[in-house]
Amino acid sequence: MAKVVLINVFEVPASRDEEFVAGWEQGKAIMERQPGYLSTALHRSLDPTAQFRYINVAHWESAQDFSAALNNPEFVAYRNAVPFTHYPSVYEVIAT
Amino acid sequence: MAKVVLINVFEVPASRDEEFVAGWEQGKAIMERQPGYLSTALHRSLDPTAQFRYINVAHWESAQDFSAALNNPEFVAYRNAVPFTHYPSVYEVIAT
Repeated sequence: MAKVVLINVFEVPASRDEEFVAGWEQGKAIMERQPGYLSTALHRSLDPTAQFRYINVAHWESAQDFSAALNNPEFVAYRNAVPFTHYPSVYEVIAT
Repeated sequence: MAKVVLINVFEVPASRDEEFVAGWEQGKAIMERQPGYLSTALHRSLDPTAQFRYINVAHWESAQDFSAALNNPEFVAYRNAVPFTHYPSVYEVIAT
């Protein structure tokens, strides 16, 4: 099983920064307790008009570990309440 | 000047992988010669139906260096010919 990268691209109006970051911290608190979690980094655009102002980049031991964490009932309940459009997917680095 | 992260989110149909990656390599060859370039990593989703199948994550010494590289005429000509919808922006890590 190879390490993978979860990248989650968010649409967040500039007026809702505090709400978004507080919610992200809640999700992180759940995920960092799950097997296979390695690290996460929340990126904010320097451009307040960017289409995707926040992008989360997290590293996991394997796609299987991340999938299990995603389906953890505590995280499912959290995620269903996230009020921002987001596009999460699991990636691998194919070129550097 | 703080280090920044350029994240570029691409929409690429699965049928056009080879064309996309070849084009990305061309852009990288230009950028890695510019002052302030540190590294880049092309991420591909494990899910062929993901909205954003490719995401490039590059590190630069500063937003100023990246901006100068973006406006380099050689790169402008390259970028104007990229046939895929993409959403580039410069980010900073605000939480880990």
